Amino acid sequence: MPELRKDPIVGRWVIISTDRAKRPTDFVREAVKLKGGFCPFCPGNENKTPSEILAYRPSNGAQKDSVGWSVRVVPNKFPALGIEGNLNKQAEGMFDKMNGVGAHEVIIETPDHSLSLAQLPAKRIEDVLWAFRDRILDLKKDRRFKYILIFKNHGEAAGASLEHSHSQLIALPILPAYVVEELQGAKQYYIYKERCVFCDAIRQDLETGTRIVAENEDFVTLAPYAPRFPFETWIMPKRHESAFENSSSQMFENLAKAIKLLLMKADRVLDNPPYNLVIHSSPVQDPTNEHYHWHIEFMPKLTKTAGFEWGTGFYINPTPPEEAAKFLREASVEDVTPQSAGVK
Amino acid sequence: MPELRKDPIVGRWVIISTDRAKRPTDFVREAVKLKGGFCPFCPGNENKTPSEILAYRPSNGAQKDSVGWSVRVVPNKFPALGIEGNLNKQAEGMFDKMNGVGAHEVIIETPDHSLSLAQLPAKRIEDVLWAFRDRILDLKKDRRFKYILIFKNHGEAAGASLEHSHSQLIALPILPAYVVEELQGAKQYYIYKERCVFCDAIRQDLETGTRIVAENEDFVTLAPYAPRFPFETWIMPKRHESAFENSSSQMFENLAKAIKLLLMKADRVLDNPPYNLVIHSSPVQDPTNEHYHWHIEFMPKLTKTAGFEWGTGFYINPTPPEEAAKFLREASVEDVTPQSAGVK
Repeated sequence: MPELRKDPIVGRWVIISTDRAKRPTDFVREAVKLKGGFCPFCPGNENKTPSEILAYRPSNGAQKDSVGWSVRVVPNKFPALGIEGNLNKQAEGMFDKMNGVGAHEVIIETPDHSLSLAQLPAKRIEDVLWAFRDRILDLKKDRRFKYILIFKNHGEAAGASLEHSHSQLIALPILPAYVVEELQGAKQYYIYKERCVFCDAIRQDLETGTRIVAENEDFVTLAPYAPRFPFETWIMPKRHESAFENSSSQMFENLAKAIKLLLMKADRVLDNPPYNLVIHSSPVQDPTNEHYHWHIEFMPKLTKTAGFEWGTGFYINPTPPEEAAKFLREASVEDVTPQSAGVK
Repeated sequence: MPELRKDPIVGRWVIISTDRAKRPTDFVREAVKLKGGFCPFCPGNENKTPSEILAYRPSNGAQKDSVGWSVRVVPNKFPALGIEGNLNKQAEGMFDKMNGVGAHEVIIETPDHSLSLAQLPAKRIEDVLWAFRDRILDLKKDRRFKYILIFKNHGEAAGASLEHSHSQLIALPILPAYVVEELQGAKQYYIYKERCVFCDAIRQDLETGTRIVAENEDFVTLAPYAPRFPFETWIMPKRHESAFENSSSQMFENLAKAIKLLLMKADRVLDNPPYNLVIHSSPVQDPTNEHYHWHIEFMPKLTKTAGFEWGTGFYINPTPPEEAAKFLREASVEDVTPQSAGVK
């Protein structure tokens, strides 16, 4: 008998198939492979992107928009939003609209075209996290921006249009619907229980252990109780914190390790799957709060089509999270960083 | 400058790109093509499906699970939910679950493997609508079921695992999250305005005309103000009605015509796209109400990947609905029903 499970944060019911549970090899998988060709994100092509907003360069004195960077942030060449101008909120009869004012940036995670995020040394992943933080702290000064969405599409099937490893940042003058849902759900739980719903879930999951994938001093990696997708996995800070950008440097170090470990395990178990990785954090203009707990959601794209979910907004997950967590937990991985990645 | 538009029902903000607006030919399209091979839905293979629940047979006296049907409803051979048993709602520590009790049925829309829904005569589409209604009326007698979801996945890229034209029905003991959102949003609007938000939108859209695709006596086909996807199109009854199954026979006749016209136009403009079609209706155990307006949502799958939306729950639509509506409105179509479909 399949199970209906309720997500404790947003109240979403999900069908978890148990009879026809799918193992990793049951999915039609499309391993992400490099195709090559001209790449505007590679060193030497700095003039093929808009001028850089931020770059980390080990050697001082290097010129802007030149080679020598380890992480580089540039405006998206085809931005979904425009950075200049006023919101100009207005009605269109009964409807509401405003100008699409916002920032749309690309974080190029490594100069090495051949490396995926999973293959970068943990120290380099940490640099990427610092770049996220630097950009958030800069953009939140602009009071027009209510939310900053940071996400990564890995592989064409997950929406990546360029294969060179990168993340994206979108600063928005509104709160996306999924953020509103999570905030409201977490707030309701807090009003009722006077506790953070995420903290409660982490505590219970650490006790039962069945949905835990990995753990370090600051972070726990787990399959949520009511995941929408097979092998959906979350990385959550163990101690309550409402916003990603408030993390300490020790936390960034441990987060980088947690991300690397999860991605290596997913590559091992699911054969280099395409995936989306999204940072869920509190609205940037809000003070820290007791009810919302920032975290990272990792969603491999395993079913060739997500047509049903896309069309109906209703989720049937063929892999119970306990089984997904077990596969990932038991996967032994060794650091696959190629020698070429060099820098430690 | 792109626009941020708010969906008036659920309050979801969507980015509508205007600068880089995409025309129909800009999308990487994968036209749905028949591949052939063994088909359990074809006449003569009735014993390859579970025994039929309902079938329309022009000739009286034909045997159950034999040939001669025009529409046939069977249980899904690999159901997402089990029909027998109790819900057995229970806690799992802080989490909530229940048995996955429900119905999962397949509506085989035509005996002719070669025909898509767009190619069926309107009369045959009307039969499919009657089959939906018959199944809803039967299933709603079972008080365990709170919601009946009817949807169609057309083409592999939209989630169809069998190519023979069919729809699916899932009867659920809970309300899906998207239904709760729509109901709550519509209710709030009604409390504030004492009018149905859908009726208001229809009235305004009929006046401005820019988002209208087609219209007949009972239905209007339009691109909603804040669509998530390019060429997303809704078919809505012009007069307020909260539930699909309450439609009169004249309405079913006109709905069949509206569906056929939209699908023919979409095939013409978008080159036989894969699509999802979903009936949005009120919960089946509720009395009729003044705030929710049933309708059909049609979403062609035009972008090769919906990875970004899938991962973030946030939507960027590269085609303004006014442009999408214009393309569909101006597409001239003739009835492409092949002679083989015969029956008038």
